[in-house]
Amino acid sequence: MEFDSIIVRFGGEIGIKSEWTRCVYEKMLMRNIKNALEYYRLIPEAVERKRGRIYIETLRTQEITHKLTKIFGISSVSPATQTSSDMNPIAQTALNLADKIIENHSTFAVRCRRIGTHTYSSMDICKEVGNQILSNLKTRNLHVNLTRPQFTVSIEVREAKAYVYAETLNGEGGFPVGSQARVVCLLSGGIDSPVACWLAMKRGCPITPVYIDNAPFTDENATIRALETAKKLFEWSIGFPRKVYVAKNGENLKTMIEKTPRKLTCILCKRMMYRIAERIAEKEKAEGIVTGEAIGEQASQTMHNLRVTNEAATRYPIHRPLLGFDKTETENIARKIGTFEISTQRARSCTAAPSKPATKAKLQKIKEAEGKLDIERMVEESVKAAKITEV
Amino acid sequence: MEFDSIIVRFGGEIGIKSEWTRCVYEKMLMRNIKNALEYYRLIPEAVERKRGRIYIETLRTQEITHKLTKIFGISSVSPATQTSSDMNPIAQTALNLADKIIENHSTFAVRCRRIGTHTYSSMDICKEVGNQILSNLKTRNLHVNLTRPQFTVSIEVREAKAYVYAETLNGEGGFPVGSQARVVCLLSGGIDSPVACWLAMKRGCPITPVYIDNAPFTDENATIRALETAKKLFEWSIGFPRKVYVAKNGENLKTMIEKTPRKLTCILCKRMMYRIAERIAEKEKAEGIVTGEAIGEQASQTMHNLRVTNEAATRYPIHRPLLGFDKTETENIARKIGTFEISTQRARSCTAAPSKPATKAKLQKIKEAEGKLDIERMVEESVKAAKITEV
Repeated sequence: MEFDSIIVRFGGEIGIKSEWTRCVYEKMLMRNIKNALEYYRLIPEAVERKRGRIYIETLRTQEITHKLTKIFGISSVSPATQTSSDMNPIAQTALNLADKIIENHSTFAVRCRRIGTHTYSSMDICKEVGNQILSNLKTRNLHVNLTRPQFTVSIEVREAKAYVYAETLNGEGGFPVGSQARVVCLLSGGIDSPVACWLAMKRGCPITPVYIDNAPFTDENATIRALETAKKLFEWSIGFPRKVYVAKNGENLKTMIEKTPRKLTCILCKRMMYRIAERIAEKEKAEGIVTGEAIGEQASQTMHNLRVTNEAATRYPIHRPLLGFDKTETENIARKIGTFEISTQRARSCTAAPSKPATKAKLQKIKEAEGKLDIERMVEESVKAAKITEV
Repeated sequence: MEFDSIIVRFGGEIGIKSEWTRCVYEKMLMRNIKNALEYYRLIPEAVERKRGRIYIETLRTQEITHKLTKIFGISSVSPATQTSSDMNPIAQTALNLADKIIENHSTFAVRCRRIGTHTYSSMDICKEVGNQILSNLKTRNLHVNLTRPQFTVSIEVREAKAYVYAETLNGEGGFPVGSQARVVCLLSGGIDSPVACWLAMKRGCPITPVYIDNAPFTDENATIRALETAKKLFEWSIGFPRKVYVAKNGENLKTMIEKTPRKLTCILCKRMMYRIAERIAEKEKAEGIVTGEAIGEQASQTMHNLRVTNEAATRYPIHRPLLGFDKTETENIARKIGTFEISTQRARSCTAAPSKPATKAKLQKIKEAEGKLDIERMVEESVKAAKITEV
């Protein structure tokens, strides 16, 4: 079947916003769709926004449909054939589609959704199309089943036009990227942090990834991996800047290991990361910091340690979208969004991590340890020397 | 089939912890299981912990299995029949089970997992049992299909014992409640906050729910609803305290409305809630505060406003497990855990909410507004007058 249109549906949450907010969100979504299609050189004939829908005219429905499922705010899409809203062309188009998709000896249903003023009801359409299918394809031994049909022919009538389709592909829902303020993300390139970034993007936030480079305690591969995951993530926010901050923290780590209790290294390092992220958030006019931390996933992520690390971030909230996720749940999303393969490539894990990290570090001990360091200068230098990479 | 045992499996994340941590977690799980079964007066004959498994002996397998799926840290359970680890009794038990579950004209597989020293391999067991099923049930027209069987007979050999089973029910995974520090949860009784609580519990945190009572701006039903959701949540942490704080905030709200810009009411109220929660966290020796906020879900939950509300919490991190969730995803969990029905019961929504709440409130304006209030005294009095209810 050659389709000529795509029906784009929005997430249910956009629909329940106030009229004004909804309109702003729909316009953002229009912009994001246009940017993505231009980026992939998939220019459609027309893009039309109606209340609660976007209709795209194109002959490259398959390629465009695929790209649309990676734009947040879209809940689902259907490749369709457009006709006028007159009964005859609708019935003819629906019959053509039925002829192509419905197998012999099977059950089918016709569904119709209608907005606008017409001489018929949705039910009239269903009956007319159903009857035409039964009579025109009668050699096929078809039966109507409205509750659990094997095949469904769907019709969406919208004012003077109608769209006939058989298939609906799910998008990821969420809000259009750009509908929320920017966030800075601590992106390690491991499995968790890219998923946390993706969830923040899904809810509308453009992201600025920050990779904390702990070389010589980590190797070059870790940096490459982080940049590759960032690149993958930016596929979900086409049209937004693709820059990544790489901030060196190796010298800081050396000093920490030299001057402070070994079992506190990871906690002090985490606090340093938050502080670097805060400075970059300020530069980037972001409103929060996102990390891939999950409760109890690592020693530095016990509920207790999350409190004492969190204490270092004084000006921005630390957002942890994975708090309640099991590792397998995070991995499933990582696979879906394409970061899992990158994150599981070999890279040396940080050799600065102590063999027995504190799981219940006392804030006072941490403060004492930090008292031996020139924290302010360390943060300052890491931020000043940070490199911005376009990926 | 009458089973006499239950195989209990742990989440994959428990298995990858250090030997010592794993052992601590398994013991906590043992304790939580015993507490739950005592609570429901479902006393088993025996409970035995082995590495990576708990085996329960009981004739009330169905009831106990059902309760076990509501204990965090358990990834799955299988009702089973116990035998010795000799080949003959295993084969006989497996044949009995096959006889009962496998339908005529179908495909089946035999699976075996073995730990310990035995005179046979797992493969030997599979072959022997498979052959016995084929020959003894040959009138049934059965075929072996190892990749996509319609029925599976499973055998788990563990040292001197063996367990034969057909069915595996999923648990929720996560960590045993009590393996992480306590958290205080702002529980409104709406759809979101109970789900956020549940996710924190799932990752091992005992919870202390705090309901902020905004009467006269909300009605009695809202309070009842919140307490009911708490009761439902405590089904997931049997053996832990079931107390809920109810803290009055209505007088505070009245003062805010009187003295500060109307569009800031929700933000000032949220900041007040965080402060009350912090005081209670201190009393309860908790390590964090959990809320049901999701990015962009409401005007007070824009990324920008999360920052300016978060700023009020200075001593505890605010954890928001639902940050990246779409409303439908939250609702699906609410339905699964049984809070959705309660949360959607009618209750007056807060009449203190302004018709045009600020979505991008300036921190300075907030500080100015709070400057007109005696915040310290307001928090103090709400906490002092807070009632503790056992549910």
